[in-house]
Amino acid sequence: MRGNAPLHDVAHLGSVELYTPKPERSLWYFRDLLGMEPVHESGLSVYLRGYGDYATSTLKLTTAQDAGVGVISWRAASPEALERRAAAITAAGLAIGWTNGDYGRGRSFRFRDPDGHVMEVYYEEQKFVAPPELHSNLKNLPQKYTGRGVGVRRVDHLALLANDVEPNRKFATELLGFQLREQVRYDRGTKEIGSWMSPTAIHHQLAYVMDVKGGRGRLHHFSMWVDNRDDVLRAADILTENGIFIEAGPSKHNNSQGFYLYSYEPGGNRVEVYSGSYLVTAPDWEPVTWNEEERGTGTYWGATLPDSFIEYGTPDVKGSASSKVPEHLKDAIASLS
Amino acid sequence: MRGNAPLHDVAHLGSVELYTPKPERSLWYFRDLLGMEPVHESGLSVYLRGYGDYATSTLKLTTAQDAGVGVISWRAASPEALERRAAAITAAGLAIGWTNGDYGRGRSFRFRDPDGHVMEVYYEEQKFVAPPELHSNLKNLPQKYTGRGVGVRRVDHLALLANDVEPNRKFATELLGFQLREQVRYDRGTKEIGSWMSPTAIHHQLAYVMDVKGGRGRLHHFSMWVDNRDDVLRAADILTENGIFIEAGPSKHNNSQGFYLYSYEPGGNRVEVYSGSYLVTAPDWEPVTWNEEERGTGTYWGATLPDSFIEYGTPDVKGSASSKVPEHLKDAIASLS
Amino acid sequence: MRGNAPLHDVAHLGSVELYTPKPERSLWYFRDLLGMEPVHESGLSVYLRGYGDYATSTLKLTTAQDAGVGVISWRAASPEALERRAAAITAAGLAIGWTNGDYGRGRSFRFRDPDGHVMEVYYEEQKFVAPPELHSNLKNLPQKYTGRGVGVRRVDHLALLANDVEPNRKFATELLGFQLREQVRYDRGTKEIGSWMSPTAIHHQLAYVMDVKGGRGRLHHFSMWVDNRDDVLRAADILTENGIFIEAGPSKHNNSQGFYLYSYEPGGNRVEVYSGSYLVTAPDWEPVTWNEEERGTGTYWGATLPDSFIEYGTPDVKGSASSKVPEHLKDAIASLS
Amino acid sequence: MRGNAPLHDVAHLGSVELYTPKPERSLWYFRDLLGMEPVHESGLSVYLRGYGDYATSTLKLTTAQDAGVGVISWRAASPEALERRAAAITAAGLAIGWTNGDYGRGRSFRFRDPDGHVMEVYYEEQKFVAPPELHSNLKNLPQKYTGRGVGVRRVDHLALLANDVEPNRKFATELLGFQLREQVRYDRGTKEIGSWMSPTAIHHQLAYVMDVKGGRGRLHHFSMWVDNRDDVLRAADILTENGIFIEAGPSKHNNSQGFYLYSYEPGGNRVEVYSGSYLVTAPDWEPVTWNEEERGTGTYWGATLPDSFIEYGTPDVKGSASSKVPEHLKDAIASLS
Repeated sequence: MRGNAPLHDVAHLGSVELYTPKPERSLWYFRDLLGMEPVHESGLSVYLRGYGDYATSTLKLTTAQDAGVGVISWRAASPEALERRAAAITAAGLAIGWTNGDYGRGRSFRFRDPDGHVMEVYYEEQKFVAPPELHSNLKNLPQKYTGRGVGVRRVDHLALLANDVEPNRKFATELLGFQLREQVRYDRGTKEIGSWMSPTAIHHQLAYVMDVKGGRGRLHHFSMWVDNRDDVLRAADILTENGIFIEAGPSKHNNSQGFYLYSYEPGGNRVEVYSGSYLVTAPDWEPVTWNEEERGTGTYWGATLPDSFIEYGTPDVKGSASSKVPEHLKDAIASLS
Repeated sequence: MRGNAPLHDVAHLGSVELYTPKPERSLWYFRDLLGMEPVHESGLSVYLRGYGDYATSTLKLTTAQDAGVGVISWRAASPEALERRAAAITAAGLAIGWTNGDYGRGRSFRFRDPDGHVMEVYYEEQKFVAPPELHSNLKNLPQKYTGRGVGVRRVDHLALLANDVEPNRKFATELLGFQLREQVRYDRGTKEIGSWMSPTAIHHQLAYVMDVKGGRGRLHHFSMWVDNRDDVLRAADILTENGIFIEAGPSKHNNSQGFYLYSYEPGGNRVEVYSGSYLVTAPDWEPVTWNEEERGTGTYWGATLPDSFIEYGTPDVKGSASSKVPEHLKDAIASLS
Repeated sequence: MRGNAPLHDVAHLGSVELYTPKPERSLWYFRDLLGMEPVHESGLSVYLRGYGDYATSTLKLTTAQDAGVGVISWRAASPEALERRAAAITAAGLAIGWTNGDYGRGRSFRFRDPDGHVMEVYYEEQKFVAPPELHSNLKNLPQKYTGRGVGVRRVDHLALLANDVEPNRKFATELLGFQLREQVRYDRGTKEIGSWMSPTAIHHQLAYVMDVKGGRGRLHHFSMWVDNRDDVLRAADILTENGIFIEAGPSKHNNSQGFYLYSYEPGGNRVEVYSGSYLVTAPDWEPVTWNEEERGTGTYWGATLPDSFIEYGTPDVKGSASSKVPEHLKDAIASLS
Repeated sequence: MRGNAPLHDVAHLGSVELYTPKPERSLWYFRDLLGMEPVHESGLSVYLRGYGDYATSTLKLTTAQDAGVGVISWRAASPEALERRAAAITAAGLAIGWTNGDYGRGRSFRFRDPDGHVMEVYYEEQKFVAPPELHSNLKNLPQKYTGRGVGVRRVDHLALLANDVEPNRKFATELLGFQLREQVRYDRGTKEIGSWMSPTAIHHQLAYVMDVKGGRGRLHHFSMWVDNRDDVLRAADILTENGIFIEAGPSKHNNSQGFYLYSYEPGGNRVEVYSGSYLVTAPDWEPVTWNEEERGTGTYWGATLPDSFIEYGTPDVKGSASSKVPEHLKDAIASLS
């Protein structure tokens, strides 16, 4: 399935850049409500991290006119792996080129996925060294658990909207070497609604889901991990008390078994607080495929996901869902994890 | 507010009788899924208990043609309190009369609330004595925690549908001496949609909610307690894996702050697994009143409660909601806790 | 058991005053780590509250030379109940006299328990009205859940050391009308090691435990409630990351079934973060009595409580445990909840 | 660090065989208390699985005279990887030879680690196919969550005692390709007390800890995963109610950050119910090394681990700890995760 892409060349999701038209409020959301730590500022960007993230930064918050996703960064497994991926991606015609690397990183190879999202791969990375006030009593924890707000531990995954899922899924599995974990396929398997993939044992670090509005390069959601389902419930309390719009959850997906809470950060991007799910360590994992009937309402328990969950992404696209999406498929794609 | 009803004459909710047309399946639900313990059988009835219930039995499951609620039992605070309540209820014209008492109890005074639900008050009660296989290592726990299914600890409350909430609420506060905790009132406070009351520090042990179908003597739900919100999530997993219909939750009410999970036991009655909420020990508690706007969708987070939550009760009444209920009120009453 | 003390004259524990020689650090502990809210300052005192406390303040932190407990306040159920308790306590020779009441309260009747702890009863009380920044989205919650630190909900109970438990227990049950819930009795029941009592359905709001050092008027611990056991675990993370000494737990008592975490606030007082336990609504509750053998190590699971748990109280008394306490009893009293 | 061992040749821990002199009682422990599912019997062995294990079986319970560990199985990443590992281990002189494979597996290469524990590597494996009564409503879950007992999800790791940790740690990293995650080193780093390693993102799947009694081939503990810390607390309730000896926990290790509960299954083997911890996806992870001072009592919170935690392993070795272990080191190794 991976063609000649060496498995494990990509080690893990490194960081995600989110654009926000309301930088102060977005920073408040991630720092004061989710409890992330700002570690650096540069130009229009603030760099943040979860208390358990080992890298210097896993979220880059950049002021922009519209919400959306900027550069998505993947860490390579070695310098050689980085070169191999750069060569393969270049051969596929998707290269943008080399940069000197963002904050805390060495040179990075930038490219686009078939849908147009900007990504990069890098190897050299600074480990986070906590300043005294963030020093943890745990030697294996890069930073103390501050007890501020939700207290998200680490970046988990992101879900991207794609005009056409299939070429993007193939790109991720064949060129990046990700393992395909789950799929939603309708119309007797001919219509690929969404695919969930990962370079690690984490269930998925990247999902592509059909953009029902026919957009390109859009974000569905960015997801941060907490250790227990109870932490997700607590997040719902905190977000609600602070007037943040909760779109769906806390509830449990059937796909991924993830326990989710989706809210919109003030800039407009959908952000998930996530726990549960399951790890995959099998080398020969057979992707789980869901058809219309099996998928049902998309949640394992309780309430059906709202229409906005299919239709809204960032940047927002006005108007109704593209006519290219048959009505009977809209419900069908109402659940990503 | 309590007229001349001595406060504290009623000590707590004793037990609830549920009717079921599917006794085998209902027993499976309460015993194998919720983890309750059957302790006695008599005629068409099975008596069950939660592992932390101190009384012999808190749920009586009786075979009947239709689902619904049978006798609702309240424990008096003393023999004198029992006599006082019997006299006051008789004076109010609601008496049915004395019985020798159900399993594990002494003589009981039976009566009807204004809506027609059958209730009784009793004082004498056998404490549960565990058989060897249910003996707990905790001397203050009447029975071991078996680890079977959800493992509900104790009865918490019940919610009854009422054709007209006000007289029933007055009955409970004035004749039974319950403290009114919360209310939902619409149309500038003139329309009483629901009232939540309790004879104990437990937020509510009895709720009356408007029967939108104009029925009488119907049940909205019966509720069992678990100690942690995580236990409610686990309940959702267990019920779903066993094909039980989950109507709403796990989620959090604004009213009562309760963390709820509503499912239909196989006989058709709505049953809640419940945690969270808050205790009230203030002697001068001022009831919290919610109007249309404040009430919103009825849940503190996430998904709106489904229409069935307003319209369905047991026994079921066919047809649409009574025309006596204005359309704009239907949404309004979509949340009880 | 309650003699002629009208049951329910005392409604609930109102507040506890703690003395601290390190007021700044103690305030940091309660405000920034436990997440309580300071609401008032007066002279050497700061008044705080849990987010779910309905009264204006439930903890008064007062600068003093030594740690320890100051005035312990109980709310009466009515103005008449207040007068009745004042008269009865005066008749028992324990009166100190009337005061105009502390912050947020009307006149209060002050007295001593037989061991010398200072208490008072009051009825009039201001309900807390949140300033805008603390306004909750929940109409039934007096203040928002801030998400800062542990986030304790409300005062739960306090445990006092007593030179001789029996007269203090009799005082609380006979003069205050508390219901005795559990006892530890050794030497074939002749030696009363500890007693747990409550005026509410909450398992205990007052405990007396033998002072093995023969002191008088000392505090064993003050306890704040959280809703879930997981919140107690989170508290352990937060306290440890901030260098607070954890003496015992998180673990589970056999007595009370409480899930506990004991730490020393910087002033030296032992403070508990507490959940679990069980409610008692039975009017004829039979106290659960534990003897040496049944009590065992005092915890239901895991590690034995440390010696300090028996020997340390505030103010601290130097030297070893009083010779009046036989060696074989010391272990025995190593667990209070 | 891994010499010429191809990284990722070993995919994950496959299964562990435990010996038990009390097969009926051990089966009761794993099936009725931990909630594992027996799937096969053969000769003196019963095969079990956690509800989330994708392989047919992850625990083999074999009747034997003494408790201890039998064959420890690792899954290779591919047929080629299996051959490579077999060749390398043979070259190292540790081979036992090929077998036809245990239940549900293809041919397996058996060998010994330097300490003498028996291991094997295999690639071909049957995925578990649930019988109808275990069918899950989740298509991505191999078997329903039954709600029986603790409900452990999957195998997590095992910890082995070793006469000399270093050669075994080198074996695992160099010949099996595991990544070293954490170490405990005393005497200025010269004395290797324990090492934690993994072939996956799971913090550790194999630990070697010094055998203070100088034994060989012994087991310290076998560990099963649950998703939430609350599940570990629930496990403590269930095990205690059933008379199982809890040696330590629930509590939190500093090493691994794992939330642990250690009990002895009736056959005598130490079994852990485990949650929390952290994932490692960094390709260049720098092992965290703890010295005497940093390690402290070995737990992050609360009670010191008991002496038995260092001294007891299976099969049990009578007599005191070997004189080869200096007294000051014994405390030091009192915590494994």
